[in-house]
Amino acid sequence: MNFILLSGGSGKRLWPLSNDIRSKQFIKFFKTNGGNYESMAQRVYRQIRTADSEASITIAAPKTQLSVLHNQLGENISISIEPCRRDTFPAIVLATAYLHDIQGISETESVVVCPVDPYVDDAYFLTLKKMCEQAGRGAANLVLMGIEPIYPSEKYGYIIPQSRGEISGVSAFREKPDAETAAAYIRQGALWNGGAFAYQLGYVLRRAHELLDFKDYYDLLIKYETMPKISFDYAIVEKEPSIQVMRYSGQWKDLGTWNTLTEAMTETITGKSILNENCANVHIVNELDIPILAMGLRDVVISAGPEGVLVSDKEQSSYIKPFVDTFNQQVMFAEKSWGSYRVLDVGIESMTIKVTLHAGHSMNYHSHKARKEVWTVISGTGWAVIDQKRRSICSGDVVELPIGCCHTAIAESELQMIEVQLGCEISVQDKQKHPISYDRIIAIANKETTNGY
Amino acid sequence: MNFILLSGGSGKRLWPLSNDIRSKQFIKFFKTNGGNYESMAQRVYRQIRTADSEASITIAAPKTQLSVLHNQLGENISISIEPCRRDTFPAIVLATAYLHDIQGISETESVVVCPVDPYVDDAYFLTLKKMCEQAGRGAANLVLMGIEPIYPSEKYGYIIPQSRGEISGVSAFREKPDAETAAAYIRQGALWNGGAFAYQLGYVLRRAHELLDFKDYYDLLIKYETMPKISFDYAIVEKEPSIQVMRYSGQWKDLGTWNTLTEAMTETITGKSILNENCANVHIVNELDIPILAMGLRDVVISAGPEGVLVSDKEQSSYIKPFVDTFNQQVMFAEKSWGSYRVLDVGIESMTIKVTLHAGHSMNYHSHKARKEVWTVISGTGWAVIDQKRRSICSGDVVELPIGCCHTAIAESELQMIEVQLGCEISVQDKQKHPISYDRIIAIANKETTNGY
Repeated sequence: MNFILLSGGSGKRLWPLSNDIRSKQFIKFFKTNGGNYESMAQRVYRQIRTADSEASITIAAPKTQLSVLHNQLGENISISIEPCRRDTFPAIVLATAYLHDIQGISETESVVVCPVDPYVDDAYFLTLKKMCEQAGRGAANLVLMGIEPIYPSEKYGYIIPQSRGEISGVSAFREKPDAETAAAYIRQGALWNGGAFAYQLGYVLRRAHELLDFKDYYDLLIKYETMPKISFDYAIVEKEPSIQVMRYSGQWKDLGTWNTLTEAMTETITGKSILNENCANVHIVNELDIPILAMGLRDVVISAGPEGVLVSDKEQSSYIKPFVDTFNQQVMFAEKSWGSYRVLDVGIESMTIKVTLHAGHSMNYHSHKARKEVWTVISGTGWAVIDQKRRSICSGDVVELPIGCCHTAIAESELQMIEVQLGCEISVQDKQKHPISYDRIIAIANKETTNGY
Repeated sequence: MNFILLSGGSGKRLWPLSNDIRSKQFIKFFKTNGGNYESMAQRVYRQIRTADSEASITIAAPKTQLSVLHNQLGENISISIEPCRRDTFPAIVLATAYLHDIQGISETESVVVCPVDPYVDDAYFLTLKKMCEQAGRGAANLVLMGIEPIYPSEKYGYIIPQSRGEISGVSAFREKPDAETAAAYIRQGALWNGGAFAYQLGYVLRRAHELLDFKDYYDLLIKYETMPKISFDYAIVEKEPSIQVMRYSGQWKDLGTWNTLTEAMTETITGKSILNENCANVHIVNELDIPILAMGLRDVVISAGPEGVLVSDKEQSSYIKPFVDTFNQQVMFAEKSWGSYRVLDVGIESMTIKVTLHAGHSMNYHSHKARKEVWTVISGTGWAVIDQKRRSICSGDVVELPIGCCHTAIAESELQMIEVQLGCEISVQDKQKHPISYDRIIAIANKETTNGY
């Protein structure tokens, strides 16, 4: 099967654990059988591999997610990188063109698109497979998944099928209704639209060329910023006469709010947390190093991380976005392809961060115009490269990086450093990358020198 | 008036803001007219100075509180330092001997003892003054304050007076009763015992010499560790026939739990905090740098600081102690006479802290057996003294302190540094102080040298 996994959204509704660069699909909420924690993206990726070990999976994602995708899913994944945000129609067209022009998949092969983060059991992927087969037979241009509703939700779109059979034509689509209207739809046999569908690759390419001005994948990539902001549903689905819906009745949850997310969590507390015996229906998700003690609470979610602390009645936790928008806060923690960093202290003309570099990785070779930096290595071994000279470093070493010097660090074993940034204007924008290949950096790092530099 | 203010307790009941070295009386909860925040100790000290600008105030405190007392109340306060904890009888005797032998107060002068942290209005101090005058007249050996109860509390001791007059003999003392018994006491006219009393200095000295084996203040200080752990109530008050109680009906609150404390706070939120419109009777006290968002809560206190986060139903917040005892946590923040420090990161063989030195202050001249340290100065100016050589330092400078070197820093203007500690066994116990006078340190710091050291 050819999968396109749509990885979107900045996801402030799971603040403080999601932020502008850490979307909800990358937060590690779920305990695996092995005892580790995995994110929604990791869970879905693993489930697809289990359902079909031969599956070809391409992730359609904005370039800001590149680091975390590699970090969580490995270096060898296939990603259709969106240079900027342009809604789902351009994103799906770009990924489809990527499958055709880069991966050489033919126009008659089936493709299935689904979100990167539904909370589902393995039956979901069997239904996707059947949808793929149905599209492959050419029975319809588009085969949608229709999820049997379990309550009259106001959050989802509805598909009204022509029949109650497993596969059916579509008589209408309905936008997010109020609860009463939703209940009426459900009495008519309506299904939730969970955003998963299958098609033959050539169909979407043809429709795309009718609607958008581009030649091939490379041309679309260059012109991507000029593409219209329009959803796939609006551009294609709702206008398509040859369309079918396949019914799915297994587990399906959209874990987009703390309320729904905590329902799916197997553990009531994660991290350093204590609930006293008078708490009922309370969840704590604690990513801080310090303990949380909850006493005498009912129907509450507590979530704490480097960006802040949320304490909310579970029902009301769906309404956090406008409050979170007022924070306009600095990103305090980020996962990168090479490791991660965490802000420890923000001063008036200084910032202190903890940097972790995975073994065998290096940061970009870069310089700063308006700040010096001081690294104190607290664990691991590796090299610092400064203005093309290298020096080996290990725990206890101090490296001073004057304003303007080009520098990087390379981890031999996992390397942790306390980085103190010092200057009048400290900004993430003040970073000049100096293109140099990883091989060249490694060559410098391996060069024999006598004393440090 | 001669005041002895008793400053006791480690106060885990206000966790996470109180800890083993930061007692509740030193947390800055109260907004003053000037817009600054003051602690309970600062508030009471200021109230006494307002009621009687000539008052002689001595604070009876364990030596662990020395730094914070000077930090909050100034360098010129009078402190009777308890070398170790020995309950209130030895503490009051030591302070009384200090008044006699160090301050030269005569045996016929009156002394009033009260806790350092009652939440009261100014009328309280007028009553203390009347108690002092009553003791001075020799009407009784001890004059206690009896507080008119406002509810049948189970937390306080009760004094049963002989009459309902402003001043009365005492017919009995009652230990903390259950609520029903307390209500019966109150119907009999009982008063709360708030731990404030007055006496002529010579009376307590005579009783002390009858019960304890010591010559004078200096002798008692040396023998302090051998003194019995016994309360003043038990040793003296309950056995004294010549005793009176003076009635007080003004404001008096014991702010020992989050529930009572938040009742006295003028602001519902302190620090970076947001309550949504569906919160009722919710208080947030946030000492972290990150925001707290509370939604849809009722009767809840949220308190967050470097040691942890408490989210509790207000009623139940009185019962936190057993849970807090299980944390057994490292102290993450401390105020010292010279400034403060805060732990930013704890690694396997490293610890990173932020040190703030007040202008004109220095830390102890000391060394470590098992760790090196690296300072990166992030603001201010001053000097580092290492093995008796000095070097001037300012923002951006890096100072490496090898294992075993003797070192200190002196702040010219307020000095902030990131200190990275590195070693196999990092412990607060690994600190060897090297006695050297402050004058000598300053002399070294002022010595002209040519290049750094």
